[in-house]
Amino acid sequence: MRYRATMSFQPFPRGDLATPALVLDAAAMDRNIAAMAAFAVERGLKLRPHAKTHKSAEIARRQIAAGAVGICCAKLGEAEALAAEGISDIHLTSPVVTAGGIARLTTLAAKITLSVVVDHPDNVRALAGCGAALFVDVDPGAHRTGVTSPEAAVAVARIIGAIGGVQFYCGSEQHITLAADRRAVLAERSAYLRTVLDALDEAGIAVPVVTGGGTGSFAIDAELGVLSELQAGSYIFLDREYRDCELAGPAFEPALFVDSTVVSANTPGRVTIDAGLKAFAADAGVPVVWRGAKGRYAFMGDEQGALIGDELPGLAGRVTLIPPHCDPTVNLYDHYWIVSGDAVAERWAVTARGRSA
Amino acid sequence: MRYRATMSFQPFPRGDLATPALVLDAAAMDRNIAAMAAFAVERGLKLRPHAKTHKSAEIARRQIAAGAVGICCAKLGEAEALAAEGISDIHLTSPVVTAGGIARLTTLAAKITLSVVVDHPDNVRALAGCGAALFVDVDPGAHRTGVTSPEAAVAVARIIGAIGGVQFYCGSEQHITLAADRRAVLAERSAYLRTVLDALDEAGIAVPVVTGGGTGSFAIDAELGVLSELQAGSYIFLDREYRDCELAGPAFEPALFVDSTVVSANTPGRVTIDAGLKAFAADAGVPVVWRGAKGRYAFMGDEQGALIGDELPGLAGRVTLIPPHCDPTVNLYDHYWIVSGDAVAERWAVTARGRSA
Repeated sequence: MRYRATMSFQPFPRGDLATPALVLDAAAMDRNIAAMAAFAVERGLKLRPHAKTHKSAEIARRQIAAGAVGICCAKLGEAEALAAEGISDIHLTSPVVTAGGIARLTTLAAKITLSVVVDHPDNVRALAGCGAALFVDVDPGAHRTGVTSPEAAVAVARIIGAIGGVQFYCGSEQHITLAADRRAVLAERSAYLRTVLDALDEAGIAVPVVTGGGTGSFAIDAELGVLSELQAGSYIFLDREYRDCELAGPAFEPALFVDSTVVSANTPGRVTIDAGLKAFAADAGVPVVWRGAKGRYAFMGDEQGALIGDELPGLAGRVTLIPPHCDPTVNLYDHYWIVSGDAVAERWAVTARGRSA
Repeated sequence: MRYRATMSFQPFPRGDLATPALVLDAAAMDRNIAAMAAFAVERGLKLRPHAKTHKSAEIARRQIAAGAVGICCAKLGEAEALAAEGISDIHLTSPVVTAGGIARLTTLAAKITLSVVVDHPDNVRALAGCGAALFVDVDPGAHRTGVTSPEAAVAVARIIGAIGGVQFYCGSEQHITLAADRRAVLAERSAYLRTVLDALDEAGIAVPVVTGGGTGSFAIDAELGVLSELQAGSYIFLDREYRDCELAGPAFEPALFVDSTVVSANTPGRVTIDAGLKAFAADAGVPVVWRGAKGRYAFMGDEQGALIGDELPGLAGRVTLIPPHCDPTVNLYDHYWIVSGDAVAERWAVTARGRSA
């Protein structure tokens, strides 16, 4: 049975949503998508947003309609799910190394335009004939994935022959709070990337695309001028973690929320809401209240959270929060509820929810 | 279309699982289920395990077959999903307060034996005629849910009339590391619960059931003798968080694992595996390696983790980890893969995955 990605219905009041509910202000998101697309055009850069943030075929379609050349996926299962919904140009930002994974990759590459990163000679050999373009992944120093020297980049590229490009993603740098601090670190990383690109050039290896960057770095990456393609993802939602950063480039607005309900209100100065560790990923601190209360949130276990403050809703009252970290929070939900003001009129699937394998 | 809860197939090697994969040693889990059931019988206590841990109809059936009187659910959606798979006696451990929620509760109570906690007079009135037994939830001091004094318990119970029982769940106390420290705190909480029960008795209110307790407290609760029904849930899996505690009562064994694959191995002393924030809930520290490596785990973002140590598998090597906190980790996956040694022969649905509303 084909999965129904989007669904429209007679609008109903947002207050009638069963909570916790993942709520998307699609108009705000579309403005974020347009702002990033315009930025990329203005700087002459390709845009390939990372879909690990939203895992949604509908959002990927909107990004591509606005000018993105395709999308990035983190995992093969994510790419399979989005390809099944018609997304036809995908770059895989993590290596695929098992025999089973390479067989699936080969099947997928027969259907869509597909590229994948590599960082090891053995993996390049195992991928021979897979049909996907191979990108040399360059480690910016975090030692997550990527070759760890210009020499290693050349060695891997030589085995590949014609490479699809180079990937360079500075992950931990994205959330450095002050733009000046972030710029200083990225400038240093970028200088290292230039040495890798110089080594490839000297070895006579053409590099058609240099892909990387995120919501914290894309404007700085554009200034630094080494990347040719931007992979930013979280800009569509602007979660609490990125709101806490001094971002450079166009202004984005929060578009992703969790609506929650007060289920207990017996203690002065605090209430308990029905959104806990199964409603928000807990890796990046706590959500913040956007609407419906003045107070701070604290996790209270798997199913609940506390709001602590002076202006709190009563029993059965509603509150809207901004998630701390969008990617793993979206991955908890099967659907986005699409709101326009206080009306809910559509539901979009989190197409690749849980497709981490 | 009816959801297919379990599936059997020709056994295949565990090493062929696409990773990250949630893996369950069902034989170990069945031994844990039997040990807890025997403990409850021996102490003359009813057992009503909490299904928020596993969200699985198959596991609930096994618990009931071993002697449990029914199960607990945290949320209405969880209860609806498990009831649809034939679980017919459910206690809801969180209040249901909205008009929409109460309508769903009423529908569910017409189909199965259902009870729900209350902690507020307004909620009791709103639930009139819902068909579920009402339990007075007593706050042990965490201020999550529950009435906050013996007088408030009596006031709520008087509005109910004939109460289903009293719930008293000490959540934050479950993970106090040393059994003696945990016992001291629980003895004090338990003494407070007695004052609530005494107040209800003096008011002429019968209390048919006193329900509560968890994997960290059940053996101490049995000693203290105030609870008549145990709600423990995590004992079936024994996650890292509970392994780190000095548990009292029968010994349990780890039964729940995540299998993962090395996707990058370019830096001496560390490898990167394909299990990150979308494979493990991050609220309770890090997973530990169970098999396949000697090293410590560190989160490396949404999709990956690092293993840092001396004995590490190479590229495409497999490693098995114990999740830090089972409940929100299980909620990330659609299926348990059931292993027997190194063979995979069944897949069970996480029936109520994501059903937090």
